[in-house]
Amino acid sequence: MFKKILIANRGEIAVRIIRACREMGIQTVAVYSEADRDALHMQLADEAICIGPAKATDSYLNMQSILSAAVVTNAQAIHPGFGFLSENSTFATMCKEMNVTFIGPDAVTIDQMGNKANARALMIEANVPVIPGSEGFITDTNEAKQLADRLGYPVMVKAAAGGGGKGMRKVLRSEELVTAFNNAKNEAKAAFGDNQMYMEKIIEHARHIEVQLLGDHYGNVIHLGERDCSLQRNNQKVIEESPSVAINEEQRKKLGETAVRAAKSVGYKNAGTIEFLLDQNGEFYFMEMNTRIQVEHPVTEMATEIDIVKEQLLIASGEELSIKQSDVRLTGHTIECRINAENPAFNFAPSPGTIQYLMMPSGGNGLRVDSAMFAGADIPPYYDAMIAKIITKGADRTEAIAKMQRALGEMVIDGIISNQFFQEDLLMDKRFVNGEYDTSFLQDVFLKEWEPRVE
Amino acid sequence: MFKKILIANRGEIAVRIIRACREMGIQTVAVYSEADRDALHMQLADEAICIGPAKATDSYLNMQSILSAAVVTNAQAIHPGFGFLSENSTFATMCKEMNVTFIGPDAVTIDQMGNKANARALMIEANVPVIPGSEGFITDTNEAKQLADRLGYPVMVKAAAGGGGKGMRKVLRSEELVTAFNNAKNEAKAAFGDNQMYMEKIIEHARHIEVQLLGDHYGNVIHLGERDCSLQRNNQKVIEESPSVAINEEQRKKLGETAVRAAKSVGYKNAGTIEFLLDQNGEFYFMEMNTRIQVEHPVTEMATEIDIVKEQLLIASGEELSIKQSDVRLTGHTIECRINAENPAFNFAPSPGTIQYLMMPSGGNGLRVDSAMFAGADIPPYYDAMIAKIITKGADRTEAIAKMQRALGEMVIDGIISNQFFQEDLLMDKRFVNGEYDTSFLQDVFLKEWEPRVE
Repeated sequence: MFKKILIANRGEIAVRIIRACREMGIQTVAVYSEADRDALHMQLADEAICIGPAKATDSYLNMQSILSAAVVTNAQAIHPGFGFLSENSTFATMCKEMNVTFIGPDAVTIDQMGNKANARALMIEANVPVIPGSEGFITDTNEAKQLADRLGYPVMVKAAAGGGGKGMRKVLRSEELVTAFNNAKNEAKAAFGDNQMYMEKIIEHARHIEVQLLGDHYGNVIHLGERDCSLQRNNQKVIEESPSVAINEEQRKKLGETAVRAAKSVGYKNAGTIEFLLDQNGEFYFMEMNTRIQVEHPVTEMATEIDIVKEQLLIASGEELSIKQSDVRLTGHTIECRINAENPAFNFAPSPGTIQYLMMPSGGNGLRVDSAMFAGADIPPYYDAMIAKIITKGADRTEAIAKMQRALGEMVIDGIISNQFFQEDLLMDKRFVNGEYDTSFLQDVFLKEWEPRVE
Repeated sequence: MFKKILIANRGEIAVRIIRACREMGIQTVAVYSEADRDALHMQLADEAICIGPAKATDSYLNMQSILSAAVVTNAQAIHPGFGFLSENSTFATMCKEMNVTFIGPDAVTIDQMGNKANARALMIEANVPVIPGSEGFITDTNEAKQLADRLGYPVMVKAAAGGGGKGMRKVLRSEELVTAFNNAKNEAKAAFGDNQMYMEKIIEHARHIEVQLLGDHYGNVIHLGERDCSLQRNNQKVIEESPSVAINEEQRKKLGETAVRAAKSVGYKNAGTIEFLLDQNGEFYFMEMNTRIQVEHPVTEMATEIDIVKEQLLIASGEELSIKQSDVRLTGHTIECRINAENPAFNFAPSPGTIQYLMMPSGGNGLRVDSAMFAGADIPPYYDAMIAKIITKGADRTEAIAKMQRALGEMVIDGIISNQFFQEDLLMDKRFVNGEYDTSFLQDVFLKEWEPRVE
């Protein structure tokens, strides 16, 4: 096992990785930008190195700086967390060249799955159902038009290099296609430096269901059940839960087996997630694979009592998976709410600032709070707005929701505006309580009716 | 189920009960003394009533005040928590007379088990092994001397009404007996208003192992496994864990069955605990039964994922136990550390005051913090010194200890002195890590060597 690793991230995921390392007796090196001088990840790590100015491109995305920090501190490996450099194959390659283990799959796998059009082609080969759409890339608007006519509207045009909602456009009608295609293409060029495009039919009223996977260096791949992440705003997940109420045991089994087959087909080595869409007929389709730890991984951790970050460290250090598929046991029901520094009353505008007083929910079984916040902590405007993940587990879904309502009800965050009340209202919504929601529910239904509380 | 209950307690256990109620949709009434005007339990409850001055006898032990508060607020039941009125049969009877449900066993059971000499006799009848000692009460020092000679020294003289270390004396030699007996008797008279005495042989190098039970109104009794509470100082538990490393599967099975038989023999209805001593030959002996929730109940809750307080509420409201013995599944290893406002460097003297800054450990699976503290909270000098229970669960004991070390390492309590560093040092002790400890280890071995850190 590694003696020392560097965590190339910030915020709650950096803290979460540092805590796992501490429990495993691994020394940690934090990196921080000038905006994060007092950040918790920097305080909790054994060593901390400033890697540049606040702007992410100058610090948390600065590969050379981060690698230098690893070399200087004798870190044997780098955990990239999520976002930033976590799916950057160039960085994975640079790590390898410097003899530093990148805690993730190898660069080839990152590229294979990172290019969404390539990934589609690989999944078709592996006999994994994909969303009806283009084979390979679409070169021009003519080809796009012909394909869309054949698939039937609505369709989604997507950047092959895309992610996080960027470089994609929903197209409802033929007349909108050319503009949408060109806009998405330009956006992709700007965001990813890559404007290759593909197209998928839009599956309406679908649910987003993803499968958590673990694969080692010896060809072993297991799945840890599914998460239903259909509650999304602008393609950003808001609430996630496991198990999904939308599938039965037979579908669950098939989903898990399909995900394992998909991961095995690319020789996957790391924690990873395959995202599927489930249509109204109960058919599911491969959407994409995330070749990294995900924000919502604690949902699966509470459901299975398996520590996914520790498994990542074991896998990267060359250990064989000690968990067999038959050992994996999901119990109860688990829900995660993302608490963001944003103002739901003003279209969820970011709300950076200083936390004046903080009382996180606490106490009792089945409550987990992952956060890097404390009274006095700064939320800089440069990075994402997530400030805490509240995760609850109950014997059943009703208890998990009741626990979450209790937890959010006692949370106090003073100094900045958060989405706490929005989450509380969403949790009370009868359709959520009944499990009747799909990926369009939050944006097209709930938010059209919702009125922010007047405080 | 009850619509509204009153919680006749304070501190973390009151908060813990309020949280359970909130998750079950039960309204809560807190009672508070003048010293607890800003206490968390008072803030979190739906209603709060001041029941008198700071001194516990004027407030939290004031039965008339508390019952009046229940009647005035239309509370249908009273949860007594632990300590205070939780094992007071007079209070249970008064509740019944006022048509308020006492969340606990009936008054007769409280008396049967509360009088330790009576409880011994009942257990002998139920074929439960008891510590060799007196049959019934000892009336005078002559009888005591004869019995001690027969049992062989050392012996323990104990008040039948005793508990919490009061009214008991360890007697090493014949010459010490008369003084010890009389002192304990006088102390018992002062503390409990009852000076009936009994005697037990001291079982040296024993372990304290207790079994958590649940019994309903229909004769169903199940056990939730054991807790090893051998790490004690002045008969006060310091660290508790489950499972115990001192027993094997066969002993575990026998212990559970014996405890269930004991509880059934008295028609036990509530959560309860039977405490056993395990001698060096692997034999166990009934010590006493606590007819209430215990401080260390979270250990069992994390091990089993069963919420014992919720079960108490269900039982008291007349529900049949929904959990069968075969449903109970203990996983992993769980440890609890009690964090007290006390100064280990000055013989653990109480350290009341105001918490200036507080950072409780957080994050990750298998970490639970039960506390009523917050930045700005007062710890009054009138009540017990416990300020938090930190509970960790790991896949095995090693992981549970590592998690606890991590958790205590990141805890920050400013403004008062706590036993945090003492607990950290104890957790690092090789003998603790190896599981090699008995009820005398902490006091007779560890504390004789331990040197408080100089901060």
